[in-house]
Amino acid sequence: MLGAMLERLHQKAPLIHCITNYVTANDCANLLLACGASPIMSDSPDEAAEVASICGGVVLNTGTLSRERLNAMLAAGRAANALGIPAVLDPVGAGSSSFRTRAVLTLLKEIHFQAIRANLSELRAIAGTAEPKRGVDADDLQNAADETAEDTAESLRQLSRQLGTVVAATGKTDFITDGKNEFRIRGGSALLRLVTGAGCQLSALTGAFLAANPQNVLEASAAAACMMKVCGELAAERMTSRDGTASFRTYVIDAAYLLMPETLNQRAVLEQIH
Amino acid sequence: MLGAMLERLHQKAPLIHCITNYVTANDCANLLLACGASPIMSDSPDEAAEVASICGGVVLNTGTLSRERLNAMLAAGRAANALGIPAVLDPVGAGSSSFRTRAVLTLLKEIHFQAIRANLSELRAIAGTAEPKRGVDADDLQNAADETAEDTAESLRQLSRQLGTVVAATGKTDFITDGKNEFRIRGGSALLRLVTGAGCQLSALTGAFLAANPQNVLEASAAAACMMKVCGELAAERMTSRDGTASFRTYVIDAAYLLMPETLNQRAVLEQIH
Amino acid sequence: MLGAMLERLHQKAPLIHCITNYVTANDCANLLLACGASPIMSDSPDEAAEVASICGGVVLNTGTLSRERLNAMLAAGRAANALGIPAVLDPVGAGSSSFRTRAVLTLLKEIHFQAIRANLSELRAIAGTAEPKRGVDADDLQNAADETAEDTAESLRQLSRQLGTVVAATGKTDFITDGKNEFRIRGGSALLRLVTGAGCQLSALTGAFLAANPQNVLEASAAAACMMKVCGELAAERMTSRDGTASFRTYVIDAAYLLMPETLNQRAVLEQIH
Repeated sequence: MLGAMLERLHQKAPLIHCITNYVTANDCANLLLACGASPIMSDSPDEAAEVASICGGVVLNTGTLSRERLNAMLAAGRAANALGIPAVLDPVGAGSSSFRTRAVLTLLKEIHFQAIRANLSELRAIAGTAEPKRGVDADDLQNAADETAEDTAESLRQLSRQLGTVVAATGKTDFITDGKNEFRIRGGSALLRLVTGAGCQLSALTGAFLAANPQNVLEASAAAACMMKVCGELAAERMTSRDGTASFRTYVIDAAYLLMPETLNQRAVLEQIH
Repeated sequence: MLGAMLERLHQKAPLIHCITNYVTANDCANLLLACGASPIMSDSPDEAAEVASICGGVVLNTGTLSRERLNAMLAAGRAANALGIPAVLDPVGAGSSSFRTRAVLTLLKEIHFQAIRANLSELRAIAGTAEPKRGVDADDLQNAADETAEDTAESLRQLSRQLGTVVAATGKTDFITDGKNEFRIRGGSALLRLVTGAGCQLSALTGAFLAANPQNVLEASAAAACMMKVCGELAAERMTSRDGTASFRTYVIDAAYLLMPETLNQRAVLEQIH
Repeated sequence: MLGAMLERLHQKAPLIHCITNYVTANDCANLLLACGASPIMSDSPDEAAEVASICGGVVLNTGTLSRERLNAMLAAGRAANALGIPAVLDPVGAGSSSFRTRAVLTLLKEIHFQAIRANLSELRAIAGTAEPKRGVDADDLQNAADETAEDTAESLRQLSRQLGTVVAATGKTDFITDGKNEFRIRGGSALLRLVTGAGCQLSALTGAFLAANPQNVLEASAAAACMMKVCGELAAERMTSRDGTASFRTYVIDAAYLLMPETLNQRAVLEQIH
């Protein structure tokens, strides 16, 4: 399944409209190109809807959010919904400020997303579950899995059903659910947390997988998450004693460019739960 | 000619004002530094004219365009025109939305550019020639060269004469014309199309070459295009089996830093047509 | 002292709010992650104060400045002052335009910074000392040291006392003063000047060192500057004949990730003056 989805991505080479933060926009664009998609990045309300209308997928990322960029997201997202173009939300920093949290809730109210890719902390902010405030790279899926794994999973299933969207909570272990069926994905590399924008890149990649495989949103979201974990592993295996996190960042995108569908099938540690 | 122009760039070390998109701004700045120039990036209408006035060249790039950034471009471009500072336009995404296309036409109406560096799709949008819509990394100069090469060349010559500017249409084969004389440049690497911002980087480089060689706009534009192709080749030659597009991106800028004028002369595949 | 400060940075892992330019934001975020801190980048006035309030340090960088981003900086800076959170200013481009210079003076009037990290040209613009205009990467600390070293040092001491802030003038030789005590730091690599944002990265790093070591602002600022110089040296030592400035950029962040506290102690060339 995974490899076939990557193959379709290579074949279809979808154009992906990203409205995203300026911190990691370059990495997102390069990752999309590396996996066969084409990025178009535009964040003006004056063109967001029109740009979305010529694309195969739309990815909205709330990092470095401004009112202007939020308006562009609303326009692009509505256009995507009207035209049946898959839309992915990355609610970066939800919970870090009330502006960011409100903006994310507005996006969720106005736009139907096929998938939301986020860390657990951001998903808790969306669900209204209490949690101590912390920055955008917080990744406590692992702790949650140890202590209250089933509670967390159930709240994510509920969120998924409530929003009618696939919820992809990624971290040390990824948990991806459409409210009924779900995947758990293990593997990857701890170094992914030490590179800015690994999550943003995964969201862009999710948009590309959905654009190429629009009939299977849950599986396509899982395939994107598997690909990121496998690329993280391949990058980690390539590290020498003098390499650090910046080399790792380069190796991740290199791995995405070189990844063969069969390697994705072989290496992914994916557990489907019915 | 080419090597001497690069040598003058190294000697003059011009300051280049880039008003450019946030996706590739970092790469543009690093490429300018690698070839001996200095970048200054400012996109506020409150300072764009003043910043332009202390620079040797101005490069306006319409990626991630906003009204605010457009106003800054108009101010910087007018200042450059008034002071005789070379100005280069990179009409990123012209044709992708009516806002982007109109903005580019406004820039062309209000500002005289010494050179326009773009892909064929963007130049068609400027010339008003019909073409199916597609993203900003479209590169169909090759197909055009096969099917309707002479028609395309003639329309670019006409565009050049009409605007009084050097037109540099870059892709697999670069075609650079001032309406009378022209260059075709071959070589390079297909990987350049898989790195975001290779075109933006070439536009920034064109600004640097023009700033250092303002008397020979056609030749300076061709020299910049040759340098990008040669750097692409050198980067491709350095690739190992584990390297992908992110390593390639690093190697391109490395090559620009290391490129000797004589190597540029030796490797460039440049055909002048009278 | 230096190594212990880096150790505390690793232990405390502070969250650093950066309001910074989009050219080098990615590098700043990756450097912060590499040295154990966490970046949060937000530049909207709608959330800047709230985001600052959950952070251990605030870094304001005036590259690619806009009125909107300036308002965000004022909000974040005031929140930091009110809550006793260390604030660092990087007055990128002060002196390059009157808008930029005025904005920097406004920030200095409205906000108390624990440290200002800048090049000499920018500090002269703040102090009102005349100097020919030049771009943001001007680095003439070395020339100043040769010709009028003591005059320059005295004017920096005065500026420090006047503003009640540590002044870190960095370049070939770094000079860091609180008006009474001071450090001179030598070493580093000339290649640091050929990578965009080495100064921005150092400012972000200064914010991280201050957040982890708030009781010793002068020493923490010196430790950050030493770390940048040592990372530059380690990166330069790793260069092969095919490596250029883009590889160097990667190696600097790699070195920051790998740097052990004892290596920082051993390699730093720090001279304290009483």
